[in-house]
Parts: sequence; structure tokens; C-alpha cells
Amino acid sequence: MTSTAAAPPPPRAYRRLSVEERRAQLLVAALGLFAHRAPDEVSLDEVAVAAGVSRPLVYRYFPGGRQQLYEAALGSAADELKLCFTEPPVGPPTERVARVLDRYLRFVDEHDTGFSALLRGGSVVETSRTTTIVDGVRRAAAEEILSHLGRIGGAGGRGAGPRLRMMVRSWIAAVEAASLIWLDEGKQPPAAELRGWLVDHLIALLAATAATDEETAVVVRDLLALETSDGPAGRLAELVIPVVAEAAHLLPHATAAD
Amino acid sequence: MTSTAAAPPPPRAYRRLSVEERRAQLLVAALGLFAHRAPDEVSLDEVAVAAGVSRPLVYRYFPGGRQQLYEAALGSAADELKLCFTEPPVGPPTERVARVLDRYLRFVDEHDTGFSALLRGGSVVETSRTTTIVDGVRRAAAEEILSHLGRIGGAGGRGAGPRLRMMVRSWIAAVEAASLIWLDEGKQPPAAELRGWLVDHLIALLAATAATDEETAVVVRDLLALETSDGPAGRLAELVIPVVAEAAHLLPHATAAD
Repeated sequence: MTSTAAAPPPPRAYRRLSVEERRAQLLVAALGLFAHRAPDEVSLDEVAVAAGVSRPLVYRYFPGGRQQLYEAALGSAADELKLCFTEPPVGPPTERVARVLDRYLRFVDEHDTGFSALLRGGSVVETSRTTTIVDGVRRAAAEEILSHLGRIGGAGGRGAGPRLRMMVRSWIAAVEAASLIWLDEGKQPPAAELRGWLVDHLIALLAATAATDEETAVVVRDLLALETSDGPAGRLAELVIPVVAEAAHLLPHATAAD
Repeated sequence: MTSTAAAPPPPRAYRRLSVEERRAQLLVAALGLFAHRAPDEVSLDEVAVAAGVSRPLVYRYFPGGRQQLYEAALGSAADELKLCFTEPPVGPPTERVARVLDRYLRFVDEHDTGFSALLRGGSVVETSRTTTIVDGVRRAAAEEILSHLGRIGGAGGRGAGPRLRMMVRSWIAAVEAASLIWLDEGKQPPAAELRGWLVDHLIALLAATAATDEETAVVVRDLLALETSDGPAGRLAELVIPVVAEAAHLLPHATAAD
């Protein structure tokens, strides 16, 4: 029982809210509950108590009950997450991606249980509508990353070739998987360390993809010109040298002697 | 309407099947339908027609109807997929992973629509039980990959540290995402090219992770000793040299001069 339940807001405040304000208030209460509990475990009674209103009032705004409230809360969380992705196209691209990841991991941290339940699937509140909302977030993430790789997106990432788009989208899937594992493991390692590794992952994937895809090779050349030796790309380049040195026996002699 | 529908097997064959054989026959018929259609679009009538039996007989074996049949078919597909992962610990590890990926991509190709529908979520047949089956396949895939990285698994990949396990599991998520994109794009690029890129992805991710994780560094050193210059690791090392050469300005002068 929370203090909100013990002391509901006075009736005066109740009457003063506009329809939009009331809806927003209910969504905030719902999101607070859905963030830290599996959606199937949240009842409308609890949402009513958390918002300090009656159950019938919740139903008046969300006649579809928990399912409708969940989808509305999810839509609102999706909008918040998309805002996290927005980063001005200034400075070394790896540092921009690092800032986006910092905000993303903060969001994951703040919505831990709900994030897990949603992405693991098999929940009774999961429908084609919730899947569409989640896919919209993934698309927005892909377009934002492509834009920092110098490939302005638009719908579906126009301007980027199929390999580069597949690369970004599969990296995003890897980030999502790593976030779920991170939550499972009690948020270890610290978020900053996880973020650093995720940026390294993207850099490595860019280099490997550039090896066989001409467009990605051009993108990487342009990106490297914007990087600095004390940023993520420079740090990784330095740390990876001893690792790659172990692969000398794999290179043709002519190249190794150059 | 298939030829099976036009010519059901004679009653003699009908009576001769044992319970186990009959169950297997129904599962094969169901899997054939679930592989190429969204599960919500497959009716029990169609399964009965495809198996050449009556609808009541399907219900006798699967009293839970389509949901139970779908879960049984999924379990059977999961077992088949886990068998695809099995690869003897012989030869260069990247070539072993390439062979596993070849079989995996053949499976994805053969179960295209069902694979997509299942992994995209939001389907009415998706339950915590189907999620558990899919997670079991992911776990089996992670253990198989960890074993080829020289870290014998057991339940949950014992023997591998948290970073290496997170690395393998997030690479598997990236492989899954790439497979879904591949299906969306009419199975382009050709499977062998996709497989080559997925192996490159794993090699790059190993190198980047070894840069900051001591255990992965040891794993990579041991792996590189098993690789050859004309295998996937040697080919990538050669192709990535011109890409990495563009990063020379990011390195400290002392290191660059060594």
C-alpha cells in the first residue's frame, strides 16, 4: 500500500483536470506500474489507486480495460524512447552513438520489468498492435543510427544499401538482447561499461562489413575522418592491436612484409 | 487443394499405424502447413486433409486443438533445429561455425513463413510455452557456439565468463534478426554470402570483445592458432587491412612506429 493510496488527492483537484490532463495522469500512473511489474500482474484497481481515482473513472477513459491502457502506456513509453534516440549530428559519430546508448540504457533501467516482459514475448497483453509499436521503435533507432553513419534515412532508411541496413538492424537486435541479459544479471556490468562494449561492437561490425561491402567501406572511411584518438574508435583501435597481432600467421607474406 | 486431399490413403494403411506413428504423421502434416503459413491461418481441417485423416482423429490426438498441435509441431521443429547445431569439434572453429550457419539458414529457408511469424511475436498462438521452446533453442545455440570457442557449456554455459556469454547470446540475436530481414528481402543476398557475413560478424565481435575482456582475449588467442590463412578468419584479416589502415591517424605515434 503506497502513500498515494492512503491519501488520495482532494476532490477539488479531481474536478479541475481537463480530459487530456486526466488521460495523461492515468497513463503516468499506469506506466509507473507497468514499468516494474509484468503486465499480467497489474490490475485496473491498482492503476486507479496509484492515480488516486475511482475504478469506473479509469474505465471511462479506457473502456477496453487493461489491454487498452497497456497499449496506450506502451505507446507513450515508445514516444519517450524515440526521444532518447535524438542526437545532434555534431562531433565524432562513435561519441554520438555512445550518448544515445547512455540514454537508452537509462530508459531500460527505469522500465526494467516492463521492458523485459514486453520483449520476451508470450505475454497475454502482447498483440499485433504492441508488436507494431515495438517495431516502430526499432525502425526509429535504425534510422537514427544510419543518420550518424552519414546515410540520411527517411522511411525505411532510404539512401543506405541493403547490407548496411541489415548491419544496423542486426546490431540493434544485439543491443536489445544484451539489455535483457543485463537486466537478468542484476544490471551488471555497470551501464557505462556495457555501453562501451556496445559501441565497440558497432565499430567492429562496421570494419568487418566494410571488408566485403563497398558502400560500408566508403561510410567507414568518411566516419574515421571524424574520429579522434582519445574517442571510442581510437581507444578500440589501440586495444585491438595486440589481439590482431596474434593473427599475423593468417596473412599472406607479401602483405605482412609491407 | 493438394493431391493428398484428392487421394486419401486407403483405410488399410489408416488402421496399420501405431499411436506413435499416427502422432508423428499428424505432426509432419502440421509442420508442413505451419512452415509456410502464419499459424493463425492454418485450420485443423487443413491439417486433417494434409494428413489424409478425419478431423475428429486430429482432435483425438490433439484434444487442445490448433494451439496444442502448434506447440507440438513447434517442439518438433525445435528438436530438428537443435540437431542442425551439432558439429564435431574438428578443424578451424570459424569453418565449424560456418557449417552450423549453413544448416541453420537451410532450416530458415524451409520454414520461412512459420519462422517469421513465430519470431515476430504478436501471434495468437504465442504463449509462455512457445516462448520457452524458442528460448531453449537459443540456449542450445549459445552452448554449441561456446563449445567451439573452447568453453564447454553445460546448463547456461558454465565455464564461460559473463562477457563472453553475453557476446555469444547477442550475436545469436543478431543472426536471428538478420535471418528475418533475409526472409523479408526475398532471401537476398544468397545464403552463402549471408553466412559469410555472419561469420565475419562473430570474428569481429570476438576481436572487439577481446580488447577489453581478458577471458575473451585468451579464447581468441587459442582460436587463432587453429585458423588457417585460406579460411574465414584469414580471408577477413586480409580484407580488413585496407579498412583498418584508414584508422592510422587514431593510433598513438609510438605504437604506429613500432
